[in-house]
Amino acid sequence: MHDLHAQRTIHMNTRPNHSSGYIVWFTGLSGAGKTTTVRALRDHLEAHRQVEILDGDELRGTLCSDLGFSKADRDANVARIGYVARLLAGHGVAVLVAAISPYRDARREVRNAACSQGIPFIEVFVDASLETVLARDTKGLYKRALAGDVTEFTGITAPYEPPEAADVRLQTDSQTVGASVRELLTALRRYRLE
Amino acid sequence: MHDLHAQRTIHMNTRPNHSSGYIVWFTGLSGAGKTTTVRALRDHLEAHRQVEILDGDELRGTLCSDLGFSKADRDANVARIGYVARLLAGHGVAVLVAAISPYRDARREVRNAACSQGIPFIEVFVDASLETVLARDTKGLYKRALAGDVTEFTGITAPYEPPEAADVRLQTDSQTVGASVRELLTALRRYRLE
Repeated sequence: MHDLHAQRTIHMNTRPNHSSGYIVWFTGLSGAGKTTTVRALRDHLEAHRQVEILDGDELRGTLCSDLGFSKADRDANVARIGYVARLLAGHGVAVLVAAISPYRDARREVRNAACSQGIPFIEVFVDASLETVLARDTKGLYKRALAGDVTEFTGITAPYEPPEAADVRLQTDSQTVGASVRELLTALRRYRLE
Repeated sequence: MHDLHAQRTIHMNTRPNHSSGYIVWFTGLSGAGKTTTVRALRDHLEAHRQVEILDGDELRGTLCSDLGFSKADRDANVARIGYVARLLAGHGVAVLVAAISPYRDARREVRNAACSQGIPFIEVFVDASLETVLARDTKGLYKRALAGDVTEFTGITAPYEPPEAADVRLQTDSQTVGASVRELLTALRRYRLE
């Protein structure tokens, strides 16, 4: 017998729920392309849903202006961004976080906190080799770090622990921003978030 | 001539816009009834719109866990709460802030920042006399402050600067929580926020 009710249930379960928030957390070296990628993704999403970018660089001028670059301060930075991201996602916002967030344990904690609140959390590794970001050096920071003018600089004088099992890995060495956005949209659809 | 369009325009302008966020900032002494009042207001609002409470006491365990009670730290506390409140209100959330926020200049800054982003901001003075909050002393903190066990305690060993022109003043010495909520709802309607 043809079961219309079952069909409708399946349809509803596979439909994206635009009233549900989620967090997409972009981690990677300075200059890897986090900000560029989240802005491009935002441009695709904001036509049909609430989106907010939490950019680590910008938040250091506001919510995290007291924090430096020690491990403790970087972990506090990640924890604060995670807290705000959960608040926003809890109100249906798609939150795109761009933050170097170099330590694996801090990223794990922020993911666990989201999951324990039932908030979908997608970790994106914005993967560009150190050679690439050194060659780009858009902000001139690597040059200063290599000269010793900037201390505790991720990749040079401070560690970066790459994700072991990121949900999405973007090879920005070799792929365009457009290709990255397509990959992210595919992942969001796979998780039924879009 | 009867102008239907003009009528409709007036109707739309007087209708509350539930997709617009706003901030209601409750200031007052510890024990004045801020938390009780925001929770009661939340219960009235959440049936038809997104609401978030940002409670100063709770945030000292999370987003503001590094802050103490000096003027600088209290101002940083108010600034951080204001930043998060603006983010949420920008996505249509009615944000109810309960924070002692004893310094007039810090409150002015947070209001100006909201206004400059076009976010409605209502200041509520939760006004209970020092005698009343001393008599209540629900958390036992005034007793400890008077004994010298808690330093920099607002109203005892640290100043509280009452608002000079709050949008709403709740006399929780003499009025019930229900009466306070009715007064708040009237104010929100007056500002066409509800």
